Amino acid sequence: MTLDGKPTLGIGMVGYSFMGAAHSHAWRDAPSFFDVAMVPHLRVICGRNEDAAGEVAQRFGWQHVETDWRRMIARDDVDLVDVCTPGDTHAEIAIAALEAGKHVLCEKPLANTVDEAEAMTRAAAKAAESGVRSMVGFTYRRVPAIALARKLVADGVVGQIRHVRAQYLQDWVSDPETPLNWRLQKERAGSGALGDIGAHIVDLTQFITGERITGVSAMMETFVKERPVAESTGVLGTGAVAASGGASVQKAPVTVDDAAVFLARFTGGAIATFEATRFASGRKNSIRIEVNGSSGSIAFDFEDMNVLQVYDHTADPARGGFTRVLVTEPDHPYLAGWWPPGHVLGYEHAFTHQALDLVNAIAAGENPQPSFADGLRVQRVLAAVEASAAAKSVWTEVGA
Amino acid sequence: MTLDGKPTLGIGMVGYSFMGAAHSHAWRDAPSFFDVAMVPHLRVICGRNEDAAGEVAQRFGWQHVETDWRRMIARDDVDLVDVCTPGDTHAEIAIAALEAGKHVLCEKPLANTVDEAEAMTRAAAKAAESGVRSMVGFTYRRVPAIALARKLVADGVVGQIRHVRAQYLQDWVSDPETPLNWRLQKERAGSGALGDIGAHIVDLTQFITGERITGVSAMMETFVKERPVAESTGVLGTGAVAASGGASVQKAPVTVDDAAVFLARFTGGAIATFEATRFASGRKNSIRIEVNGSSGSIAFDFEDMNVLQVYDHTADPARGGFTRVLVTEPDHPYLAGWWPPGHVLGYEHAFTHQALDLVNAIAAGENPQPSFADGLRVQRVLAAVEASAAAKSVWTEVGA
Amino acid sequence: MTLDGKPTLGIGMVGYSFMGAAHSHAWRDAPSFFDVAMVPHLRVICGRNEDAAGEVAQRFGWQHVETDWRRMIARDDVDLVDVCTPGDTHAEIAIAALEAGKHVLCEKPLANTVDEAEAMTRAAAKAAESGVRSMVGFTYRRVPAIALARKLVADGVVGQIRHVRAQYLQDWVSDPETPLNWRLQKERAGSGALGDIGAHIVDLTQFITGERITGVSAMMETFVKERPVAESTGVLGTGAVAASGGASVQKAPVTVDDAAVFLARFTGGAIATFEATRFASGRKNSIRIEVNGSSGSIAFDFEDMNVLQVYDHTADPARGGFTRVLVTEPDHPYLAGWWPPGHVLGYEHAFTHQALDLVNAIAAGENPQPSFADGLRVQRVLAAVEASAAAKSVWTEVGA
Amino acid sequence: MTLDGKPTLGIGMVGYSFMGAAHSHAWRDAPSFFDVAMVPHLRVICGRNEDAAGEVAQRFGWQHVETDWRRMIARDDVDLVDVCTPGDTHAEIAIAALEAGKHVLCEKPLANTVDEAEAMTRAAAKAAESGVRSMVGFTYRRVPAIALARKLVADGVVGQIRHVRAQYLQDWVSDPETPLNWRLQKERAGSGALGDIGAHIVDLTQFITGERITGVSAMMETFVKERPVAESTGVLGTGAVAASGGASVQKAPVTVDDAAVFLARFTGGAIATFEATRFASGRKNSIRIEVNGSSGSIAFDFEDMNVLQVYDHTADPARGGFTRVLVTEPDHPYLAGWWPPGHVLGYEHAFTHQALDLVNAIAAGENPQPSFADGLRVQRVLAAVEASAAAKSVWTEVGA
Repeated sequence: MTLDGKPTLGIGMVGYSFMGAAHSHAWRDAPSFFDVAMVPHLRVICGRNEDAAGEVAQRFGWQHVETDWRRMIARDDVDLVDVCTPGDTHAEIAIAALEAGKHVLCEKPLANTVDEAEAMTRAAAKAAESGVRSMVGFTYRRVPAIALARKLVADGVVGQIRHVRAQYLQDWVSDPETPLNWRLQKERAGSGALGDIGAHIVDLTQFITGERITGVSAMMETFVKERPVAESTGVLGTGAVAASGGASVQKAPVTVDDAAVFLARFTGGAIATFEATRFASGRKNSIRIEVNGSSGSIAFDFEDMNVLQVYDHTADPARGGFTRVLVTEPDHPYLAGWWPPGHVLGYEHAFTHQALDLVNAIAAGENPQPSFADGLRVQRVLAAVEASAAAKSVWTEVGA
Repeated sequence: MTLDGKPTLGIGMVGYSFMGAAHSHAWRDAPSFFDVAMVPHLRVICGRNEDAAGEVAQRFGWQHVETDWRRMIARDDVDLVDVCTPGDTHAEIAIAALEAGKHVLCEKPLANTVDEAEAMTRAAAKAAESGVRSMVGFTYRRVPAIALARKLVADGVVGQIRHVRAQYLQDWVSDPETPLNWRLQKERAGSGALGDIGAHIVDLTQFITGERITGVSAMMETFVKERPVAESTGVLGTGAVAASGGASVQKAPVTVDDAAVFLARFTGGAIATFEATRFASGRKNSIRIEVNGSSGSIAFDFEDMNVLQVYDHTADPARGGFTRVLVTEPDHPYLAGWWPPGHVLGYEHAFTHQALDLVNAIAAGENPQPSFADGLRVQRVLAAVEASAAAKSVWTEVGA
Repeated sequence: MTLDGKPTLGIGMVGYSFMGAAHSHAWRDAPSFFDVAMVPHLRVICGRNEDAAGEVAQRFGWQHVETDWRRMIARDDVDLVDVCTPGDTHAEIAIAALEAGKHVLCEKPLANTVDEAEAMTRAAAKAAESGVRSMVGFTYRRVPAIALARKLVADGVVGQIRHVRAQYLQDWVSDPETPLNWRLQKERAGSGALGDIGAHIVDLTQFITGERITGVSAMMETFVKERPVAESTGVLGTGAVAASGGASVQKAPVTVDDAAVFLARFTGGAIATFEATRFASGRKNSIRIEVNGSSGSIAFDFEDMNVLQVYDHTADPARGGFTRVLVTEPDHPYLAGWWPPGHVLGYEHAFTHQALDLVNAIAAGENPQPSFADGLRVQRVLAAVEASAAAKSVWTEVGA
Repeated sequence: MTLDGKPTLGIGMVGYSFMGAAHSHAWRDAPSFFDVAMVPHLRVICGRNEDAAGEVAQRFGWQHVETDWRRMIARDDVDLVDVCTPGDTHAEIAIAALEAGKHVLCEKPLANTVDEAEAMTRAAAKAAESGVRSMVGFTYRRVPAIALARKLVADGVVGQIRHVRAQYLQDWVSDPETPLNWRLQKERAGSGALGDIGAHIVDLTQFITGERITGVSAMMETFVKERPVAESTGVLGTGAVAASGGASVQKAPVTVDDAAVFLARFTGGAIATFEATRFASGRKNSIRIEVNGSSGSIAFDFEDMNVLQVYDHTADPARGGFTRVLVTEPDHPYLAGWWPPGHVLGYEHAFTHQALDLVNAIAAGENPQPSFADGLRVQRVLAAVEASAAAKSVWTEVGA
């Protein structure tokens, strides 16, 4: 395969930190390892801090730097807008881009509220009528072991699903002295663990099972109510107070959840437990998903991300058990592009797969998955979780 | 150490199947491996089926067989009554025994209702005034790794507890063709997965954390609503119906839960998820408990029962992680009685430890743990779970 | 099943420490959990220290105590002699017992030299002509996961065997200050890690593969050349010297290997690596065996003894991998006698299985496995290892 | 950090398949994620097949394509020659490049013979006098968990090393119908499993321990003596024969080892077992290394490459055990350039780290590690293995 003569796709990306690096790398790597139908060009990176954006541009090969996302959207050489900013800006940028006829990849969660997500979904549906595509960045769907899990469930390996248990466990703010940052502020992040990482397991379980969550019963908790403010961050709202004691360390309230737990039911009748937390000491980025069904089970843990555990309940019990499938065979999802069996992949590979699938969907004139509507579905579950937690955990139907 | 001249303790046991075998073995093994302060004698086994009870008597060395538990309690050579029958008979037998001045070991769950459990607890308290001891058989507390977990939490290794996640996963009735038995009938078993196995993780998490569950939000589910009736079992109530189709296989309703899931809060503020199910395909007897706190974590899975995972959040992150403690060192709980390091223990060892501790508590004139009051506490949590599940999962305080 | 009217088998056991406890327990447990064709009676325990032997007698229910093994053999009420003494006494006791018409169970290694083992094997063969049975105690063969491994290989699951890797790793003498004991003295133990634990993996790999080791290339090492002498042990030969320094701690030479490693070839052409050591820090009793063949693999680690890993090389690669078989199903070897699935077994259960199989073989008039001839085969491999290690690791055929 | 004004380093790479892709990606990624002191430019890719090389050029952004490596070396815009061809060409290309004053990165094994490796090492030493640098591509040294293992051993965590066990297990040719390729031909590859993958574990264990292998006792085996010849490969020597049977499938002999096993001793006295095989069914790329010492142990398996198991033998036994260090913390080697904790790395990241360290060594005027002399040391061990295997496994000193 050669890239000669293939159409190109001009990418314009807003945001340049953690997600910005992951996306930059993915746009660049996708055509190196896979047969892309269009070749993404790293055209414009956009950030309010020109120096910082410029440095990322140099590191990854972005051709131009803009400091105003509206100007970036307006450029003719930008075909797709990649939104990597905090959630409070998603709706405005994504809708503007879609209305300007640009394809959009928007980081998760789709928005900070259901209202915003609905507006975005409407904009996406309207844009799709003119062939403009949109996708929300639930990237973990494209971890090969997760994609294999989805395939096995769709193939009937698990049978009728009875149990889902999903946990997203981190511990990066379990120390009360960890300072505030935007992810701990409701006005920027919308919610805490729930929207940041809970959104992933809501999406992943719906993706893997092919079912939807119909209702929830929830609790949310903020273990550490206020935190030091690092002067340099400028994170300091009206609630900031001088800490007690001699030193003038200022503290400000944490306005999001540190952890969220909820029970749920899926359309097919399965019952589920969910947990998203930043306080699970010792668990760094542990996404654990297990699905039990009438004919089998699958289990996954991101800390061992190249492995999918598969159980066949119909096999001879004397030889049965969970099989540790090392998802590095050429027949596994996305693996044909990479290395020989046993040469494992890492975190950012899923971003490359996301770029690949998005580019190829655009070239094929198809709507990529997960859609904004999928993102909205997740948002509605998160909203139901918040509503239930605010109402003594009472069972709360997910809006449709 | 020699057994010469030690006082003896005459045991009378009601019930002779699964738990009967485990208890028989434990009474016999305890003085073989440990320094007991009194020597238990396998005096009387009691069962309505004299032949079946007689066979167990022969296999384990019980000296006498009775078919009426009241007659057994009345015997002078019985000092302790060991109740291994289904839950609907616990209250009557245990209270009668206590009133007759016999020490009592009662299998879990303590009873099928809170009312029964309260009556038993009152009887136990009264009997204790005269030095009559009682204990409920939450045997898993004496799995060495669990006992070590309790010790580490008490020693402050975990710090302030923020998360508890507990699962008891089995799959033995996930096949709809598995016939009915007493564990699937409310009138005998009280409840299904909740009381049978959920009770264990309620007790274990309260034991390990040293805290109590204050409230719950719950769901319960019966996936398979009716099941074939095996003729020989005599399990056939008024609800039995002829199965459709030519064959005259009869089915009867399952009147208990197949699975129960709930959220909970502990006295110290931790939030928790619980799951008890008989439908987790591929999980045979998987008791998984993880506790995360401000300074560390512990994690356990009964399918690898000799191991406790311990995480020290205060250690150098560059060398930190979960330590797989193989709980077979002489300094570990109960291990001094057994084999050299690395020579692992099995399921029934915990029963031996239970017999040991009970005998020694009696000899020392102390009330053994877990007490009937502990059993009542578990029962109240189970009742709150049922109440919440019946009321749209609304938050339900645990009665005190 | 009842034990009524079954023939009995009077057991006389020589030795009463670690192995004595394990064997006592097994003789007592076998008829409790399994259908034995003869009922073993714990008739006589024999030890030079009458008090110590008497205590074990009390703990496990031995009826009589003898201090002279010849007198025990001479007793009419002893039908089987169970030899649990150090290796230097095996030949004399076992041969005497066989000549007296007593069945014999002899702990491993069968003897300290090939000559002794040959004499024992001849005695066993001669005795077998009169229906007198003999067995060597390679107990690990009867760990259910090992028995399952043997069955799977025999069923062709692994295909043509190409690789065997076997390790027996302990660390109990890695501290140079651990004092001398009889296992570190050549005149008592014959060899060190090689005979004590290496013997097990030689036997197990020959058992699992159904093949024999034909030659070896070996190294042996004594890392700590001399050790303190604990006064009370009386372990003090002519080589003992006063330790340097002020204190009068005496040291004596270690006369056995701390570790032995060797390459080997099996009759079917497979190549193998073996390692037996008491210096593998952190490994307590880790028996790891992996067999790779043309159609599959099996892997085992005693530290997780209820699990056998099984790989099917003929399966669809997209769903293949090692299956973690939890060997607790009723169809697994020996499991029908124990608990429900998922209720795991421990170290001493294999001794119960050994007692069961031996009793039933005697009742059936069959020669039990492993035979003294099997023990001799192991001894010849050990001898070849020692010869190769003494001759610059040169390839050394195993004598036949 | 910005790349502005940094010196550049023109890379010329020979070879374009598996290793070519891995190296291309690494040159490109290093400055994206790390602070490089010089910026590598993907200047020239060289391959005899111009189309194939041209495609790789397009995919990764190589600016020029050459078909003659001599011409590539002669270019002024090439500062470093990256040798990714089979082993039989390493010496010629690398020496020519060094003599032309180009820095060299040479894939492993350094050469196919000790003579070649010696000549290369002499050339490297001479070139170093003029500031020309050279490195051999034992890339796994830069897997973060391996680099951490090295650091822990150097810090004394393991103490005096007593045992090394190292396995490199693959299964990609275990099917006899897998056709011949250059890795199975002695004239191209030099040796089979030994040089291809055994070389890695020889280097890694010497790197981690900081010691050298002084002698070996070895066996080598070719399980499948001849294989089908795929017509398109052109792999067909004089030994090719028509297969029996009607079809005209041709077979040719396999002239390298399928597996090599050996015992070894390290300079500090440790004893070791090594195994390299392509016939370990179910093991895909399993590099397992365990080191046991007087104060601790470390263990690694590449199939879970982000984890290092660490055991502290000096800790309280009641809380001791192997700690599963998830090597994704900012303080871990190379991790500061990547993602937050728990976001794991994959196979190719080690190549990026290699490119980083090489570039920075060149900029600093230092000789990078591993040097050609390190590669020669590995080669001498491999030669000793072959000599021992050819001489009845007799102990064979490693040449110095």
